[in-house]
Amino acid sequence: MAEKKGLKSRRVILTEYVEGYPREEHMELLPAAAVLDRPAAESSPSVLVKNLYLSCDPYMRPKMSRPIPGQSSYTSAFVPGSVLTGYGVAQVLRSSLPGLAPGDLVWGITGWEDYSVVQPPFTGLLTKIDPELAQDDKLPLSYYTGILGMPGLTAYVGFHQICSPKKGETVFVSAASGAVGQLVGQFARLMGCYVVGSAGSKEKVELLKTKFGFHEAFNYKEEDADLSGALRRFFPEGVDIYFENVGGKMLEAALVNMKTHGRIAVCGLISQYNLAGGEKEGVSNFACVVSKRLRIQGFIEPDHKHLYPEYAAWVVPHIREGRVVYLEDVADGLEMAPEALIGLFHGRNVGKQVVRLTDE
Amino acid sequence: MAEKKGLKSRRVILTEYVEGYPREEHMELLPAAAVLDRPAAESSPSVLVKNLYLSCDPYMRPKMSRPIPGQSSYTSAFVPGSVLTGYGVAQVLRSSLPGLAPGDLVWGITGWEDYSVVQPPFTGLLTKIDPELAQDDKLPLSYYTGILGMPGLTAYVGFHQICSPKKGETVFVSAASGAVGQLVGQFARLMGCYVVGSAGSKEKVELLKTKFGFHEAFNYKEEDADLSGALRRFFPEGVDIYFENVGGKMLEAALVNMKTHGRIAVCGLISQYNLAGGEKEGVSNFACVVSKRLRIQGFIEPDHKHLYPEYAAWVVPHIREGRVVYLEDVADGLEMAPEALIGLFHGRNVGKQVVRLTDE
Repeated sequence: MAEKKGLKSRRVILTEYVEGYPREEHMELLPAAAVLDRPAAESSPSVLVKNLYLSCDPYMRPKMSRPIPGQSSYTSAFVPGSVLTGYGVAQVLRSSLPGLAPGDLVWGITGWEDYSVVQPPFTGLLTKIDPELAQDDKLPLSYYTGILGMPGLTAYVGFHQICSPKKGETVFVSAASGAVGQLVGQFARLMGCYVVGSAGSKEKVELLKTKFGFHEAFNYKEEDADLSGALRRFFPEGVDIYFENVGGKMLEAALVNMKTHGRIAVCGLISQYNLAGGEKEGVSNFACVVSKRLRIQGFIEPDHKHLYPEYAAWVVPHIREGRVVYLEDVADGLEMAPEALIGLFHGRNVGKQVVRLTDE
Repeated sequence: MAEKKGLKSRRVILTEYVEGYPREEHMELLPAAAVLDRPAAESSPSVLVKNLYLSCDPYMRPKMSRPIPGQSSYTSAFVPGSVLTGYGVAQVLRSSLPGLAPGDLVWGITGWEDYSVVQPPFTGLLTKIDPELAQDDKLPLSYYTGILGMPGLTAYVGFHQICSPKKGETVFVSAASGAVGQLVGQFARLMGCYVVGSAGSKEKVELLKTKFGFHEAFNYKEEDADLSGALRRFFPEGVDIYFENVGGKMLEAALVNMKTHGRIAVCGLISQYNLAGGEKEGVSNFACVVSKRLRIQGFIEPDHKHLYPEYAAWVVPHIREGRVVYLEDVADGLEMAPEALIGLFHGRNVGKQVVRLTDE
């Protein structure tokens, strides 16, 4: 647990800005620089951690593109030649940050590397994992990249706050077997809503119905010719709430099928992330927004961080008692991280995509 | 004032469903049927009125299109062969509705004809005009098709409620010299916001700056090559509130220029109403909704009808004391109504388009 001088680390860097789908050559696994051996700077607190789990999340794709001047994003772009960063679970080896000591387990933003030095502003996002919870067999550490981390709070805030759901309402979730979608479906069902999910394979559709308790589910690839018709089959009376993870054609189909006063929580638009500017699918039936008085609300988890304790207190009993389940797709080893991230944009993962860096 | 038997009336009918821009041949002025001479049915209350002013409103265009099954609208389509309907100001000649008596002045939904029999459900929308206000030189009767009617309440609800404005925020209004836009700009200025409007001619741009108190204004036709750049010039720090009346390319440009946590009230999409399904301009930069956590809210005035008394009490002193002005473009005679409505979709009107049916 004590800090070792001369730690051997490896890291995954971005080799160049990505256009279209990310490919293996856009990332490279390299030996890490000697930065880890440097003593912590006195001027700003830092935390040296050993990374245990890394999270592959859709929002990482826009960060791989060349930034467009004037089009600010809520996260800054990755820099070619530099290490990728993302959510992860890690163990503290050295800390000059009050409240964190060697041995502590944390989740937050870390590097895609064996060891990371977490510095401001990311030190402020490190959340200490309750040692008691960390011992709970039903709450594996990897869950802090998912149901107990950013995707979990995203699903909770997005559904319970942004969607203003009421018992008995109809809910549609796209990318429904993903890190966030599988939770939104279960949260909606817990609230007494009727919930239908879309996913990209027969296997995922089965999971939605058998494991995650969606009332119905469909494979969007099989319904590609008439997504709107598919939604009309499952929602003959219309959709009260659309939890939007994909964008493009699915958003168009959803708009047509929304009920009056429907709500659309826009969490992500994964179908559009790998398209060049000119290829992005336009939403042409925006008139529905007026005729149906729809509310469309974009949101991101960091704005709602203060709700994490409330969320954790709510969800942990649900997990322990089996009312909410979570499915992960775990890749083993830092060397597998690029492939795992790439696979996310082709829908190869079944459940939340995690990379495990430890044998624990 | 008393009902005359054998009233001679004329009416404007829709001849056929409209595709593209409406043209003269889509409407026809015909002698009215003898329906006006029938005694009021006992079963449901009705009101015989003499129409004084008719309102030309953008929402009438979607009602002229062939209805698309499954794509419900909040108003039903016009029927070829039947009279057009819309907002108007009228005088009661005969009434079986409690609270309305011959001689009373009302505003609400009426027919595009000299005399109309208003029946349920539209009797419920008839609002009696306070006789004292009707005598006020500063509050002409035609204003009940505009600032004191549906467009006024639309601007009030849309800006004050849907946009959640705060003093000092930046506001962009499209179709800013129109019936609603000219009011939103003035309401925003009254609240202490910085407000910029777009319109389609040099004359309108001048009006926005000199008559309606917009801080800045621009001609969107002159900025067509780079609407986004135009917005960036006027809003170097970004737009807090976009009051959306036009849609299409302007919406795309606005999305790029919105500030984080910006709000877009979607009141109408006049740029899209005359385009066929396949021609509608898609919004391809929807990703801004997530990255900037935007709220986009469609709304229509009828949902907020209960706020009319509050609005009227607020706006009447502003009009009387000259803090809010209103500009109308008045066409004379029912025979001019089709041309006036057609002109609206080409931006020929300067100010709110009204048709006067009386010499009063």
